[in-house]
Amino acid sequence: MEKENLSVVLHSQGDLRLEQRPIPKPGPNEVLIQMHSVGICGSDVHYWQNGRIGDFVVKKPMVLGHEASGRVVKVGSEVTHLREGDRVAVEPGVPREMDEFFKSGNYNLSPTIFFCATPPDDGNLCRYYKHSANFCYKLPDNVTYEEGALIEPLSVGIHACRRAGVTLGSSILICGAGPIGLVCLLVAKAMGASQVVVTDLSPERLTMAKELGADFCLTVKKGDGPDELAKRVEALLGAQPHVSMECTGVESSVQAAIYSTHPGGVVVLVGLGAAMTTVPLLHAATREVDIRGVFRYRNTWPMAIAMLASKKVNVAPLVTHRFPLEQAAQAFETTRQGHGVKVMLKCDKTDQNP
Amino acid sequence: MEKENLSVVLHSQGDLRLEQRPIPKPGPNEVLIQMHSVGICGSDVHYWQNGRIGDFVVKKPMVLGHEASGRVVKVGSEVTHLREGDRVAVEPGVPREMDEFFKSGNYNLSPTIFFCATPPDDGNLCRYYKHSANFCYKLPDNVTYEEGALIEPLSVGIHACRRAGVTLGSSILICGAGPIGLVCLLVAKAMGASQVVVTDLSPERLTMAKELGADFCLTVKKGDGPDELAKRVEALLGAQPHVSMECTGVESSVQAAIYSTHPGGVVVLVGLGAAMTTVPLLHAATREVDIRGVFRYRNTWPMAIAMLASKKVNVAPLVTHRFPLEQAAQAFETTRQGHGVKVMLKCDKTDQNP
Amino acid sequence: MEKENLSVVLHSQGDLRLEQRPIPKPGPNEVLIQMHSVGICGSDVHYWQNGRIGDFVVKKPMVLGHEASGRVVKVGSEVTHLREGDRVAVEPGVPREMDEFFKSGNYNLSPTIFFCATPPDDGNLCRYYKHSANFCYKLPDNVTYEEGALIEPLSVGIHACRRAGVTLGSSILICGAGPIGLVCLLVAKAMGASQVVVTDLSPERLTMAKELGADFCLTVKKGDGPDELAKRVEALLGAQPHVSMECTGVESSVQAAIYSTHPGGVVVLVGLGAAMTTVPLLHAATREVDIRGVFRYRNTWPMAIAMLASKKVNVAPLVTHRFPLEQAAQAFETTRQGHGVKVMLKCDKTDQNP
Amino acid sequence: MEKENLSVVLHSQGDLRLEQRPIPKPGPNEVLIQMHSVGICGSDVHYWQNGRIGDFVVKKPMVLGHEASGRVVKVGSEVTHLREGDRVAVEPGVPREMDEFFKSGNYNLSPTIFFCATPPDDGNLCRYYKHSANFCYKLPDNVTYEEGALIEPLSVGIHACRRAGVTLGSSILICGAGPIGLVCLLVAKAMGASQVVVTDLSPERLTMAKELGADFCLTVKKGDGPDELAKRVEALLGAQPHVSMECTGVESSVQAAIYSTHPGGVVVLVGLGAAMTTVPLLHAATREVDIRGVFRYRNTWPMAIAMLASKKVNVAPLVTHRFPLEQAAQAFETTRQGHGVKVMLKCDKTDQNP
Repeated sequence: MEKENLSVVLHSQGDLRLEQRPIPKPGPNEVLIQMHSVGICGSDVHYWQNGRIGDFVVKKPMVLGHEASGRVVKVGSEVTHLREGDRVAVEPGVPREMDEFFKSGNYNLSPTIFFCATPPDDGNLCRYYKHSANFCYKLPDNVTYEEGALIEPLSVGIHACRRAGVTLGSSILICGAGPIGLVCLLVAKAMGASQVVVTDLSPERLTMAKELGADFCLTVKKGDGPDELAKRVEALLGAQPHVSMECTGVESSVQAAIYSTHPGGVVVLVGLGAAMTTVPLLHAATREVDIRGVFRYRNTWPMAIAMLASKKVNVAPLVTHRFPLEQAAQAFETTRQGHGVKVMLKCDKTDQNP
Repeated sequence: MEKENLSVVLHSQGDLRLEQRPIPKPGPNEVLIQMHSVGICGSDVHYWQNGRIGDFVVKKPMVLGHEASGRVVKVGSEVTHLREGDRVAVEPGVPREMDEFFKSGNYNLSPTIFFCATPPDDGNLCRYYKHSANFCYKLPDNVTYEEGALIEPLSVGIHACRRAGVTLGSSILICGAGPIGLVCLLVAKAMGASQVVVTDLSPERLTMAKELGADFCLTVKKGDGPDELAKRVEALLGAQPHVSMECTGVESSVQAAIYSTHPGGVVVLVGLGAAMTTVPLLHAATREVDIRGVFRYRNTWPMAIAMLASKKVNVAPLVTHRFPLEQAAQAFETTRQGHGVKVMLKCDKTDQNP
Repeated sequence: MEKENLSVVLHSQGDLRLEQRPIPKPGPNEVLIQMHSVGICGSDVHYWQNGRIGDFVVKKPMVLGHEASGRVVKVGSEVTHLREGDRVAVEPGVPREMDEFFKSGNYNLSPTIFFCATPPDDGNLCRYYKHSANFCYKLPDNVTYEEGALIEPLSVGIHACRRAGVTLGSSILICGAGPIGLVCLLVAKAMGASQVVVTDLSPERLTMAKELGADFCLTVKKGDGPDELAKRVEALLGAQPHVSMECTGVESSVQAAIYSTHPGGVVVLVGLGAAMTTVPLLHAATREVDIRGVFRYRNTWPMAIAMLASKKVNVAPLVTHRFPLEQAAQAFETTRQGHGVKVMLKCDKTDQNP
Repeated sequence: MEKENLSVVLHSQGDLRLEQRPIPKPGPNEVLIQMHSVGICGSDVHYWQNGRIGDFVVKKPMVLGHEASGRVVKVGSEVTHLREGDRVAVEPGVPREMDEFFKSGNYNLSPTIFFCATPPDDGNLCRYYKHSANFCYKLPDNVTYEEGALIEPLSVGIHACRRAGVTLGSSILICGAGPIGLVCLLVAKAMGASQVVVTDLSPERLTMAKELGADFCLTVKKGDGPDELAKRVEALLGAQPHVSMECTGVESSVQAAIYSTHPGGVVVLVGLGAAMTTVPLLHAATREVDIRGVFRYRNTWPMAIAMLASKKVNVAPLVTHRFPLEQAAQAFETTRQGHGVKVMLKCDKTDQNP
């Protein structure tokens, strides 16, 4: 095994460096992974540009990246379900404590959870990375590394659709056609949603939504009235959607989602906005429209792998750009400018295939 | 049977009259009820004072009252489960259509539902009233008429606690110690809540809460910071409550409820406030604290009767004032001034007992 | 409108007649329907051959048929959502009482429900039939009459999959590849099931299952050990299925379903068997495998129409035989002999298209 | 600290010994506990008498006991939530792997779970015992050691009532008035059940049930017809119970539970019976009566402590016999003979109080 471990390290706001780090040694319950494909997430760019997200502040150098897959190259002494050479997808959140959240299956809510590229925890945008073996999942032969890396954003969509109760025949409004809006679309369709409307400011993004299966696309303009938008959504579907998935975090969009939703339905908040939001809570409450947040995900990797292996969902079109790890700077700049959907960094010098 | 049908009629904002109305004739699926006890609800007073609640406007004279019980005196030709002389509690909402809401068990959300004393539908604050027999429930001998009338506010508490998922060992914050806060307290305790904190501006109301089983009472002041209040609640309970039941509709109180609630918990909105509310939605979303509204109730009468008959819950102390129907004006004035908890009007001249 | 109303009437066990009946007059909440396509169900044949199913006994002549669609030709005075000329699918179960089951959304469990072709209630295998308008659902232009008629068996699959909690990534065992096993397969796939194994005695039926999307088919033989079968299912899937859908009613198959299912999973009993069944209940209980029955369906038509309209599911291949109503005898004989999957009777002389 | 560690060790079927064992050393995530009170469970006696329960066979000497509480005397290096001197209740099941069951909150179903006094894992009927700190729960000052030990059987009742969906106003049939039937009764009442019928062969046991809150008791005789019994239950309650909790494992009792339960209701199997059981599955299926097993419990200790601390439930009367650890032989003999309800062994020589 080579000695170098080229890593994408954020030192502080705006200071992103490509540097060598030591190759980590896996503990008894860990595996060492030679990274293959790592997607860039909006949050990676946000840390780079702002040095923080909410209360999470970059105070010391941190490796970025948390949408990842690779190949196991060393296996800890107590690991039984993985072997050298296994191709794995990495779930970036690993609970540190067997607290009430973990015991009840809600480990994503555990306040002490380790999470790749959330300060101060290092991510996996590098050549070699070690991780809890229990949160590495073996990929079947017919699932590519890139599909493995895309399980992370796909998981946001799965958790959001689960929290929303999407099921057979559901009609859905998705606000925002960015990467997260698009994975919500893919998952909702795979769960049997009959009709999905996607809204966005950008007609180009909506073109992608259409290609991925959206039944209707609605171009919105800044300043559109939320209740007006709700009426347009209802007109398109012939009825109010059972579920609205808000993926922008923009206040007027949250309002539109609430106005749009059918009595007894659900609004899930997938996009994150400002600390305080002004919303028509009375309108939601008297129609029993539930408002549910989505924080990352839990228990999604096995299901996602089952979906990908059985070709229930096609995530490949989401990858619009690829860069070798050495060109991480360009890759981040491309993401920052909002080009395409998903930018993938290829970390294995010997294999840059999907 | 006597001919007169003394009724409490709201003609328009501020114009409340006691007047004779014809005794109605029950249809084939209806029963005629000689009213016995009818509680005054905050909404009755609100219609009287404001002539409207939201989009519901008093445009023509309307009989008030919807917390009611009485004795069946005439039975429609197709009614099989009730007989003359049966003592019944009246569920005021009767779906008019077999729409999707009714078919799926959510008839409270049916937009065309009949509802006593919601314009333009007449209520039952009168001597004689006819109602769908399917929404009249026979009272066992050991449940009084007044307990029967109190099933209506109790139902709000039942539906709120159900929507909140209150269960064995739940810890609970109830914002507001008015009649609805108090029934939420009673129901939460009956469902196994281990600890309940009740907050209110008024120490007197909190005294009542204490007597009805609150584990902790917290007097709040206008201007108290919502996050500060959340900390006091956590300090009292030793942890954040699983469930917060907001019964005031006041914006700062909704904020406090969100800040207070445990990750993965639920805030139910029982009190109704302004059309637009500014809330820490991000704080709720990233901790997966669900926000759920409560619109009236559904399928609560049989359960409430089972509770009352088995003495699982004691609602009798809620009745603090009683007036004969003839003194409706004084009864309404007493309620308007906020005295006591529940004012009961006694509609049967021959029996003014509880 | 013509005067004749040719109807398929079962007089008693074995005595099936084609005879004229009066055209019914719709009540105020009913519509009169000119029937177009009516599928023959196994239960129709069972009544014909045995004169009874369990406690339901044919004691007087009864029109058969309950998988139906047609065109509205007369509208009751109080019907608002349908008009003459509307193409509709007919939900055969109509609750007669607003009992606790109906109020809570479980109207299929109401003991007094009207149900087409369950004695003594007449079905709709005839030219003209009247039905509660609330249980007739308008078909969109892109859904055929036959698809409308197939909503009935499809509803069994929807209700079974719902009761089973089928969701994204579920792996499934379906015992039996008859019409009901096949609709379960279609619905499970549409709800996101990743892998479905179907078992049957008949390789021909399994061929149909394969064409409709089964991932694996397993030919079983009488006398195969249930635990042995469970091991073969696990070997095929690489793990025990989350859900087993038993569609045969055969004791050994119920046993195999229980042995096969993953801990924490669900067995749904769709097929009906003998009154008493010997099962490995201990094995189910200690692994918390739930056993859930399925009685018809509730609240499935709107969802099924949404699915069909959005082309999420293709039921057309299920129809393998068609006969004009006049040839009902041949149609019943074909079904009795177990040929094909679904036999459709065409009731409209002027339009025998799908 | 003393050196001896007197322990109740089962060497093989029928060979129960009281012997010294070394005091264990806690690992970094463990605590060493000086045991105080340990209840004898039916399974302890069963292993003693039969040497096995199902596939679990005593092949080497095993310490018995798993209903336990004690005082922390040594704390592992990585334990943060417990300190020396803390009084704790011990949850006997500790998952060994972060498998799919643990991650989804169903750790009781994990096949590799450690469980006290299930072969080959040692229990805690001894002076000193070490355990995973994460599965030791600090007792508040107002909860006694014996209440702490009784959390284990109480947890069976909690998990069973949760699985059954017991809630406000539920009516309940409990088959069997042994210790598990009685804790089901206590928990069901605490969750708001309105009416509970308990059945048993023994009038004495039913007397205890009556004292603990049963609304009705029904003495059954061997040979009573299950459907006949169901009618008697319905007659007592005035309707079929929503939930039946089968705590005997006897076939005829399982049958009676199924016949008794209301359509749409639930039968939970708490008692364990023979491998194969003959039941009226058709009767359950066509009325959508779910059959759900209960395997131990999960996530019950915190809730049980909250209940005990808030005095929602009184378990103290369950303890009918106490013996010092030295008299374990007599204690086991007392349990074997079926005297009383719960026999408690007092393991701390210096404190034999409850």
